[in-house]
Amino acid sequence: MALGDEDASVDSITLFVALLCACIVIGHLLQKNRWFNESITALVIGLCTGTIILFTSEGKSSHILVFDEQIFFMYLLPPIIFNAGFQVKKKQFFRNFATINLFGAIGTLISFVIITTGSMKLFKILDVGFLDVGDYLAIGAIFSATDSVCTLQVLNQDETPLLYSLVFGEGVVNDATSIVLFNAIQKFDLSNLNSSIFLEFFGNFIYFFLTSTLLGVAVGLFTAYVIKKLYIGRHSTDREIALMILMAYLSYTMAELFSLSSILTVFFCGIVMSHYTWHNVTESSRTTTKHTFATLSFISEVLIFLYVGMDALDIEKWKFVSKSPGTSAGVSSILLGLVLVGRAASIFPLSFISNVIKQSQSDKITFKQQAIIWWAGLMRGSVSIALAYNQFTRAGHTQLRGNAIMITSTITVVLFSTVVFGLLTKPLIRLLLPRKQLHANGHSADSESSLSKSMDLRLPLVANGHSADSERGGESVDSIPRPTSLRMLLATPARTVHYYWRKFDNRFMRPVFGGRGFVPPAPGSPTEPLLR
Amino acid sequence: MALGDEDASVDSITLFVALLCACIVIGHLLQKNRWFNESITALVIGLCTGTIILFTSEGKSSHILVFDEQIFFMYLLPPIIFNAGFQVKKKQFFRNFATINLFGAIGTLISFVIITTGSMKLFKILDVGFLDVGDYLAIGAIFSATDSVCTLQVLNQDETPLLYSLVFGEGVVNDATSIVLFNAIQKFDLSNLNSSIFLEFFGNFIYFFLTSTLLGVAVGLFTAYVIKKLYIGRHSTDREIALMILMAYLSYTMAELFSLSSILTVFFCGIVMSHYTWHNVTESSRTTTKHTFATLSFISEVLIFLYVGMDALDIEKWKFVSKSPGTSAGVSSILLGLVLVGRAASIFPLSFISNVIKQSQSDKITFKQQAIIWWAGLMRGSVSIALAYNQFTRAGHTQLRGNAIMITSTITVVLFSTVVFGLLTKPLIRLLLPRKQLHANGHSADSESSLSKSMDLRLPLVANGHSADSERGGESVDSIPRPTSLRMLLATPARTVHYYWRKFDNRFMRPVFGGRGFVPPAPGSPTEPLLR
Repeated sequence: MALGDEDASVDSITLFVALLCACIVIGHLLQKNRWFNESITALVIGLCTGTIILFTSEGKSSHILVFDEQIFFMYLLPPIIFNAGFQVKKKQFFRNFATINLFGAIGTLISFVIITTGSMKLFKILDVGFLDVGDYLAIGAIFSATDSVCTLQVLNQDETPLLYSLVFGEGVVNDATSIVLFNAIQKFDLSNLNSSIFLEFFGNFIYFFLTSTLLGVAVGLFTAYVIKKLYIGRHSTDREIALMILMAYLSYTMAELFSLSSILTVFFCGIVMSHYTWHNVTESSRTTTKHTFATLSFISEVLIFLYVGMDALDIEKWKFVSKSPGTSAGVSSILLGLVLVGRAASIFPLSFISNVIKQSQSDKITFKQQAIIWWAGLMRGSVSIALAYNQFTRAGHTQLRGNAIMITSTITVVLFSTVVFGLLTKPLIRLLLPRKQLHANGHSADSESSLSKSMDLRLPLVANGHSADSERGGESVDSIPRPTSLRMLLATPARTVHYYWRKFDNRFMRPVFGGRGFVPPAPGSPTEPLLR
Repeated sequence: MALGDEDASVDSITLFVALLCACIVIGHLLQKNRWFNESITALVIGLCTGTIILFTSEGKSSHILVFDEQIFFMYLLPPIIFNAGFQVKKKQFFRNFATINLFGAIGTLISFVIITTGSMKLFKILDVGFLDVGDYLAIGAIFSATDSVCTLQVLNQDETPLLYSLVFGEGVVNDATSIVLFNAIQKFDLSNLNSSIFLEFFGNFIYFFLTSTLLGVAVGLFTAYVIKKLYIGRHSTDREIALMILMAYLSYTMAELFSLSSILTVFFCGIVMSHYTWHNVTESSRTTTKHTFATLSFISEVLIFLYVGMDALDIEKWKFVSKSPGTSAGVSSILLGLVLVGRAASIFPLSFISNVIKQSQSDKITFKQQAIIWWAGLMRGSVSIALAYNQFTRAGHTQLRGNAIMITSTITVVLFSTVVFGLLTKPLIRLLLPRKQLHANGHSADSESSLSKSMDLRLPLVANGHSADSERGGESVDSIPRPTSLRMLLATPARTVHYYWRKFDNRFMRPVFGGRGFVPPAPGSPTEPLLR
């Protein structure tokens, strides 16, 4: 019943929902194909739809909905990142915590410096429109943001747990770093760059990182406490589920409100919720939340790529480019090259450092693995697009030549890296790590849960949740060799930290916040009134 | 990470999410209270928050988010109505189909005529600003729309199945009728009212009803077919869930696009999906969708009442009223009176007609039940507010005295009817139908599923889904006495129709569209590849 005059938006909502359904069905049919994945399907469908609209509207406009960075940051990104935190294998993640931060923070800075200086030098040769120092710094930040969304689809948590946790974990920290960098560039006075600014930035980053993490952990623990204490599932499972979803989203908006890194906040909120809150709810709420979070994340992912695909054909942006196609192609190629070089310059040296620090042989990153980490992080995605729109389409200088070229080049780099690099990732992994090695790798990295591992192979449908579950339970505290001396702590620091964390968790955290082993009273006992 | 300058909207989103969480927790704590329910809690919290903001902003503005009818109709209403169709007890609903349509269509028309003529006569006495014939007709349509959302919370499907299915089913048809009426008023030339317009309206209504229903059924069946045929759950449960959610929403937007009654469409889509599609998905998808739909609906309901509560204190609207508080109070009282009279004039005579038609004693509506049906449908809700905003705040005559008074009166009627009538409904039911009678009533209306009924009492947490389930399975085709002659058909028409429907369903529909009994191959069989 069309009440108002919003038919145009009903049009586009209907089209988008129908295309989303098409993407899901086609993605399902192409599942066995080793090249394609849902992201690329969505991109291609988006591009095709854009083309059709472009022709039917006789070249007027291809974009029904313009890429809106607020929709992206407020509604599409949170479920993806939260779900990643919720489903991540926590033991793997925390074991590689130092390496992840090394890659995510220092690696991004290296990338940023290389892309900024490289583009400053190389763009001079081409006839690019006017760009000031701030623009070049922004370019560095924009193209240092790897696309964790696409990475999630290409790597498999069960096949290559070490690589998955490294690349994905890096992606989260990297997103946070790029956005902090980007905001710092917009805020700071760029006319007099000196060392104090870098120091200030560094202090800012540490502050952001700690406060954002703490906020996420606090919201997660608070939710766990409330749900355990009030036993909300007693009257209604729906309330439990609603509360978990809303509190997760609240952590994100609160971080936005306090100008923290909302990506980090919601990621850690997801980790805490899967460790405590998830175990405090009823059985059906557990099943529901696990799948609901995954589904919301999945829909958001597909929507983003559909969006980017359709938006890429916006005719306005390409007007400037058609006058000088060479320049735009040149800029895109330079940026792609710098992305390749920048990531190589950060991953290989930092892996070397990480290998020197790590004692255990199984935690060392082989050269082949380094190559995959390098390659899997080359894709640039929606964060880059959102940041580019923010920098180059702000009021006042929208119609400048340099800005138009930067927007189209960003879209080109995103499309090319997602489609070409993305398509080649799965075959590359098959090439570098053959099937047998994949499994061996999986076992060496997660050897103590080999039983649960094989269970996962039989239950692919519930693999994520169950393995996270059995991982937690599969090894009891007793099965870990108790450290008897300081030498042991030095020899296997990760295990020892984990041992003490378990002790602390069992003694202080679980009695208050629930978690695995918390059994709510049987629902529907005779004393419970029959209420909705 | 606040990227743009949208801090204001982040503010209000954070506030809304936090208030939603508060409503859920407080609603849980007040669960045992027989007066309160979530809607009233949300209204009261909304009013309190509005007051606080009004004082802190020093009387400038109380509303952070203005009531936006597009958000309401496009995002908040669909999950509520879909979930209602998904969870409704189909047998009850179709058994009372004739009565529901009698109440929903004819009853709404009676209400509409009484409220329109009554307000035309009575507003003359008060010094209301200028209102033309179209406005009076619109008032009739606006105040004929009962609030099915609040009704759902007040009545209990398991305690009073007959009343629930009558009042709720009526609410859905009633919403559709009022919106069709409202649109007809806006479209037709009102200067020359004659009988052909009424005929045209009647034809329109039948057309709307049939096409809307068919669209919903078609989308539901298509989804069932696709999910069964392609067996989407094989690779990923998330895809199944996403497809069900998106297709349900697609049915709504398609109906909007074709200017049909989207409420009817999505309601019937829900019914078909719960009968076929839901049985074709994997076990965990079943649990997840059941709870996800319920949770989405629950969040939307609470959000609407929070919204209405906060919006009620918008200072702009009350400026005109403060000059003549008597007029506004008079208008509100007249409208409340007309609502009471209009509903009485439709429910009691129509119940009499329904009782004459119905043969079976158990299907007849007692006078006490009629009183409850009358009372439970007195609440006016968000549909009324959305229609009132549409009629009285359209561009051109926003600042007219008559319009301002109508908006504030609508809010007054909605608040008063929801809080006062709503608060009294539960005690009224307890008074008219004491506990013992409630159960007897439940059994007489649903006697063959008494076993599943008592199971439900033990499992209140899963009552909705399970009972709907056992209802379907509890009585096999054989347990229904086979009709041997035409006399039997006349004696128990509902049963006979149901019998032939089951036969048709089993022979033609289920082999194509799945449904109960469709067992997908065991997931994770050795031939299945290990994919995400």
